[in-house]
Amino acid sequence: MQKIDVLSGYVELINMMPHPSQGISADLYAVNMARTSFLGESKGEEADLKLLKYLIEHKHLSPLEHIKFTFKVKVDIATARQWFRYRTGVFSELSRRYTEVDEDEFYIPTDFRAQSSNNKQASDGLISNQVGAQNIFDSIVASAWDSYAKLIELGVAREQARLVLPVASMTTFIWTTDARNLLHFLKERCDEHAQYEIRQYALAIMKIVRCYMPHTLKFMEM
Amino acid sequence: MQKIDVLSGYVELINMMPHPSQGISADLYAVNMARTSFLGESKGEEADLKLLKYLIEHKHLSPLEHIKFTFKVKVDIATARQWFRYRTGVFSELSRRYTEVDEDEFYIPTDFRAQSSNNKQASDGLISNQVGAQNIFDSIVASAWDSYAKLIELGVAREQARLVLPVASMTTFIWTTDARNLLHFLKERCDEHAQYEIRQYALAIMKIVRCYMPHTLKFMEM
Amino acid sequence: MQKIDVLSGYVELINMMPHPSQGISADLYAVNMARTSFLGESKGEEADLKLLKYLIEHKHLSPLEHIKFTFKVKVDIATARQWFRYRTGVFSELSRRYTEVDEDEFYIPTDFRAQSSNNKQASDGLISNQVGAQNIFDSIVASAWDSYAKLIELGVAREQARLVLPVASMTTFIWTTDARNLLHFLKERCDEHAQYEIRQYALAIMKIVRCYMPHTLKFMEM
Amino acid sequence: MQKIDVLSGYVELINMMPHPSQGISADLYAVNMARTSFLGESKGEEADLKLLKYLIEHKHLSPLEHIKFTFKVKVDIATARQWFRYRTGVFSELSRRYTEVDEDEFYIPTDFRAQSSNNKQASDGLISNQVGAQNIFDSIVASAWDSYAKLIELGVAREQARLVLPVASMTTFIWTTDARNLLHFLKERCDEHAQYEIRQYALAIMKIVRCYMPHTLKFMEM
Repeated sequence: MQKIDVLSGYVELINMMPHPSQGISADLYAVNMARTSFLGESKGEEADLKLLKYLIEHKHLSPLEHIKFTFKVKVDIATARQWFRYRTGVFSELSRRYTEVDEDEFYIPTDFRAQSSNNKQASDGLISNQVGAQNIFDSIVASAWDSYAKLIELGVAREQARLVLPVASMTTFIWTTDARNLLHFLKERCDEHAQYEIRQYALAIMKIVRCYMPHTLKFMEM
Repeated sequence: MQKIDVLSGYVELINMMPHPSQGISADLYAVNMARTSFLGESKGEEADLKLLKYLIEHKHLSPLEHIKFTFKVKVDIATARQWFRYRTGVFSELSRRYTEVDEDEFYIPTDFRAQSSNNKQASDGLISNQVGAQNIFDSIVASAWDSYAKLIELGVAREQARLVLPVASMTTFIWTTDARNLLHFLKERCDEHAQYEIRQYALAIMKIVRCYMPHTLKFMEM
Repeated sequence: MQKIDVLSGYVELINMMPHPSQGISADLYAVNMARTSFLGESKGEEADLKLLKYLIEHKHLSPLEHIKFTFKVKVDIATARQWFRYRTGVFSELSRRYTEVDEDEFYIPTDFRAQSSNNKQASDGLISNQVGAQNIFDSIVASAWDSYAKLIELGVAREQARLVLPVASMTTFIWTTDARNLLHFLKERCDEHAQYEIRQYALAIMKIVRCYMPHTLKFMEM
Repeated sequence: MQKIDVLSGYVELINMMPHPSQGISADLYAVNMARTSFLGESKGEEADLKLLKYLIEHKHLSPLEHIKFTFKVKVDIATARQWFRYRTGVFSELSRRYTEVDEDEFYIPTDFRAQSSNNKQASDGLISNQVGAQNIFDSIVASAWDSYAKLIELGVAREQARLVLPVASMTTFIWTTDARNLLHFLKERCDEHAQYEIRQYALAIMKIVRCYMPHTLKFMEM
């Protein structure tokens, strides 16, 4: 389906329910669920959208939970750790107990952001010495992978050798969630208070989801 | 309440429901919930234990969900990532966007395990060159912290500087879960197929929990 | 702890975490969880309340999930069915497969409300013929119980005989939920769009909860 | 898709993910999720089934959570109340605050089961006076509907009039759940200790699900 490159990784929609081949928009699907009616049954676009708007304005959001999205995501571990806090989704992650890490599997930032002076939990603008930071970053990531490779060579188990890898290491997972919880995730993570990295991923997902349920997003003011 | 040191961290029981000051064992509490009766009401120890055994043998485990445990845990990030997959619990984690990491906040293994030859996902015995592995490990962890400190000095935001820290970095969180899901966690993570590190934490928690609900654990053959 | 009669039933707080004997208000407990600090540790009331207000205004509500409330509730089946839709709580219900129903175990309304003319899903004011409705109601409830008793007498299993009982039959359950989800329940069910019956129960619960976390409710504008 | 009549109601599969039009069996889909691989990618049927068997035998069941089933169900309220206890699913139910109940919307048993003499919570065999029980049952259900109709005629709101209807009243809902939790439901409700009514529904659902994931059910010994 759709795949968008984000930073050193990507997000890819790999499945959804209703499936596009069924020819029912997710917007109409939510209305069908609220009416407990046949899939695809419409009372006319105007009546359908009026009900959808009503449901969202009155926060009757459970019909959205019947709609499912499955994404494949490649992202750094620090960002993945924020992502996995959304406990209503299902995550299947590639295990580093099972597979080795390749030399190029790291997130390398291209801009180094400054610590915010008035928000202890945020960044604000860029630091002046970009080249200095880039050198430190590149060098330690290369050393970490080198140490990992040496430990593997000494016969250390993958599950233990990975301990030396930086949280900038990339991980890959499949994530299935429902539209209600997905929109909640997007609301929080497309927000400007979210960390820059996860925000780029969330914006890419929002772009994809908007194709399938444009009216729901519009009524939610997203 | 009880605190047990585990590897470079610890587990500490900081609260539970029923609270010990109420003078009701968690074993009896589960029986009260199943009977929808008054807290602490007993039909005699024999009848109470007979019902508890019946509930567990017939997998009527929902009464156990009224019993809550809250632990404070300090553990490396790799292990925390396995832990956070248990989505029924509540986690409050110390944020590294907010606080800096100290020099000694790393898990340093004392034994390096060998990759299992017949199980792609496990370790098996120890490698021969323990000193070599230890040197590689200590050295890269020290370098990583040094790089982190330098990035902070250059003014890089904590949320971004942390990317160079190894997954061996320690993290601290508070975890609240119910007895049913806690026992499920313990069953999986005290198992010999679980990774060594999380198993040590799970065994420490089991030791604590056994003090409060000894009969439940016994009937579950734990 | 506290018990409030509601319609033909009641709500009773039977336990909570933190337990009152611990001497920590639930308001402060939420702040402790957010800070990952010791239970009861305060940075002064002003600083504590400032953080609590910040958490609520920025919707960082997960610290509230460590706070648990357990209620015993007696309520009619129609209302219980609305209640059990809140899937994050734990419910232990007295089973009618197991115990017989007594003659007086029914919710008998004292006022009969009129169907709203402009909201297909609500009531609005009272009907004029209150006595007529009361007679119909009392009579059919008495007949239903009589039929139930006769089926039991013929030897019909309780699990099947109960099918003739009205949804006005009372049921008793124990409900454990966390403060975040409890406040969400109260927000929806104390609302004037909620059905009259469940609203009375929700208002009684709000009265109880307000004693234990007054500032949280105030900051949530409840 | 498939619809099976059960007692006075039915179960109907109305959607699933993966959708049949995608041409991937749910068995293979689970394997794809465990491998974090492309949908439909096979390493040969033998290798695929070997992995599926391994996952199930070692209780690595989370890949099954990516598979979703949506059913439309018509069932009596007593059975629905047992069903709704499975809190991991999503339920959208036709509201009786919104729509009136028709005269024929009741579950009428054709056999009356006897109370078990050795299990307080079960039935065992049939009672001798079937005709007597049938008459009591038919008569009170007819009276209840008559009382309901009279209350509606007096102008009583639907949300309140429904209180006189028996728990034998039929209700209709849409249920979406994942394969892991669905199989857990089937294991418990196809069991001979489950009440007769819900067991008939569960057996019908198992028949449908077996068409889509025959190997998963076989490896689970279902």
